[in-house]
Amino acid sequence: MRLSIDAMGGDNAPKAQVEAAQKAIQSFPDIEITLVGDEEEIQKYLTDSTRITILHTTEKIEDTDQPTTAVRRKKDSSMVLAVREVKEGRADATISSGNTGALMTAGLLYVGRIKGIDRPALSPMLPTLDGNGFLLLDVGANMDAKPEQLLQYAIIGKTYMEMVRGVNKPRIGLLNVGTESGKGNELTKNAFPLLEAAGFHFVGNVEARDLLNGVADVVVCDGFAGNLVLKTIEGTAGTLFSLLKKELTSSFINKLAAGVLKSSFKEIKNTLSYSEYGGAGLYGLKAPVIKAHGSSDATAVFHAIRQAKEMVEQQVVTIIKSEVAKLEQKQE
Amino acid sequence: MRLSIDAMGGDNAPKAQVEAAQKAIQSFPDIEITLVGDEEEIQKYLTDSTRITILHTTEKIEDTDQPTTAVRRKKDSSMVLAVREVKEGRADATISSGNTGALMTAGLLYVGRIKGIDRPALSPMLPTLDGNGFLLLDVGANMDAKPEQLLQYAIIGKTYMEMVRGVNKPRIGLLNVGTESGKGNELTKNAFPLLEAAGFHFVGNVEARDLLNGVADVVVCDGFAGNLVLKTIEGTAGTLFSLLKKELTSSFINKLAAGVLKSSFKEIKNTLSYSEYGGAGLYGLKAPVIKAHGSSDATAVFHAIRQAKEMVEQQVVTIIKSEVAKLEQKQE
Repeated sequence: MRLSIDAMGGDNAPKAQVEAAQKAIQSFPDIEITLVGDEEEIQKYLTDSTRITILHTTEKIEDTDQPTTAVRRKKDSSMVLAVREVKEGRADATISSGNTGALMTAGLLYVGRIKGIDRPALSPMLPTLDGNGFLLLDVGANMDAKPEQLLQYAIIGKTYMEMVRGVNKPRIGLLNVGTESGKGNELTKNAFPLLEAAGFHFVGNVEARDLLNGVADVVVCDGFAGNLVLKTIEGTAGTLFSLLKKELTSSFINKLAAGVLKSSFKEIKNTLSYSEYGGAGLYGLKAPVIKAHGSSDATAVFHAIRQAKEMVEQQVVTIIKSEVAKLEQKQE
Repeated sequence: MRLSIDAMGGDNAPKAQVEAAQKAIQSFPDIEITLVGDEEEIQKYLTDSTRITILHTTEKIEDTDQPTTAVRRKKDSSMVLAVREVKEGRADATISSGNTGALMTAGLLYVGRIKGIDRPALSPMLPTLDGNGFLLLDVGANMDAKPEQLLQYAIIGKTYMEMVRGVNKPRIGLLNVGTESGKGNELTKNAFPLLEAAGFHFVGNVEARDLLNGVADVVVCDGFAGNLVLKTIEGTAGTLFSLLKKELTSSFINKLAAGVLKSSFKEIKNTLSYSEYGGAGLYGLKAPVIKAHGSSDATAVFHAIRQAKEMVEQQVVTIIKSEVAKLEQKQE
């Protein structure tokens, strides 16, 4: 299997991407990698090019670029070329830490949707207290989703959790403002019966306050709601950590006590970190397209590579395709 | 001025309600209070009945009751009677810590909407790092809001923050998935130009991750989105505190160090607590109806009483009425 990596996207590019690629080559004997980006920059960090090919380009999509315009105009950018490696059959999956909107656009344009999936979903794994995590989809690919699309997300999420995360009968939850059926807005009220009838392990409505407790393995929602929840979790955790830091350095004795607890605080940060789960998938496309966080270090990129590899190995796309086809037959 | 209080709603009723009422009577010489509930229960905690009247009833709406059914059937419940005190002119505002949905139903049914406000908004003050807090509306009264309704929320919020919280030219933000205009779902895209044209201090789209940093004084959104954000903040903070507790009690040395930091942790909890801001208002009704948190203690109920008193004093309802009327003239 061959994976293409946009070596120039993200805050730590290309160092993190190159180091992650080398680690992946060492860890997984069955993969080859194409690093797409500025050859000179990449060579600075590349100490062993076994099974690694460089596809040279100097063009790059910036985080501040308008996504659709950037993808259409910067046809030789590292991101677009990395995605085209997949489209043209030279790679089985692709990974980028660059501009999220541009990656969604490039994925749709060049890789294309699975038949029966109206819109792909941007889907990160988020942390839970028990360490298992849950898949939230969608967090921003599709702002005004329809009930049928939430059902498609559930099928995507179920397949991913079964095949890649090894969860038996994943619990599917519908993000909502209360647990009782009949709660919510028009979208969730109409999606509920569809999810209930779909024949998987639907656990009903789940509330935002219970997400980190691991109330479901897959949580579906429209992209607007998912994005709000994702960013509220990030913002609240960030605020708490900054309050904590301020308090713990406010006096000498506090600093001493905080020193003792350092490893505990690190443990908490690790529990809430989601880099080891890999990146956010852009699921529903004809091949795995993984968006690693813009701030990804080599470890985070490595986990995204592993995630892409497992999706290819487990034939997640093929299975989603057949599950969606089954659903369509049932509806006819 | 007279305020009516549902003495039986909430986890600590009637103790918290009675104690808060007595404290309010001592603090504010210009108010009288009607405590609605079981006279025998109330008398247990009432040590001084100066300017406090009891309106006796034994019927009560439970938290588990279906809201609309409960309000229609339990006509003699403490909550319904407290709200009716306002409707019938015997009280200027009312406070309850009981069933939120039932209070919204009773407020709409008996107190009624201000002309020009389509739907009232449930609006808590949420904490910010600088201690000023912000008003979030709506968090669940109206799940599928229209763009014009978000504009009405902005007017309500602006008036409240000016008159009750003393904020000069409150910054109004639209909750969205990105700060650029043109971002978001159909609702926010259509609400943006309305808010921009309204002539108040509109700061544009605000992201969920920036809310606790105090990016705006008033944040408007539909009830579904607001409820998700509110509960995600609660859930994330709760998860972090429970992780912290687990880590800090995991060894003897940790317990010692944590002991030193006890007041710091308390400080953090206080920063993030919003009981001192009062309860969530049900704004847009013809009189102040305040929903205090179900877990409110006497201090939290006291702040909710103060909030109701200030709303009456500052004639918030009258001002909202005239602002909405101005808006309607402008639109004609």
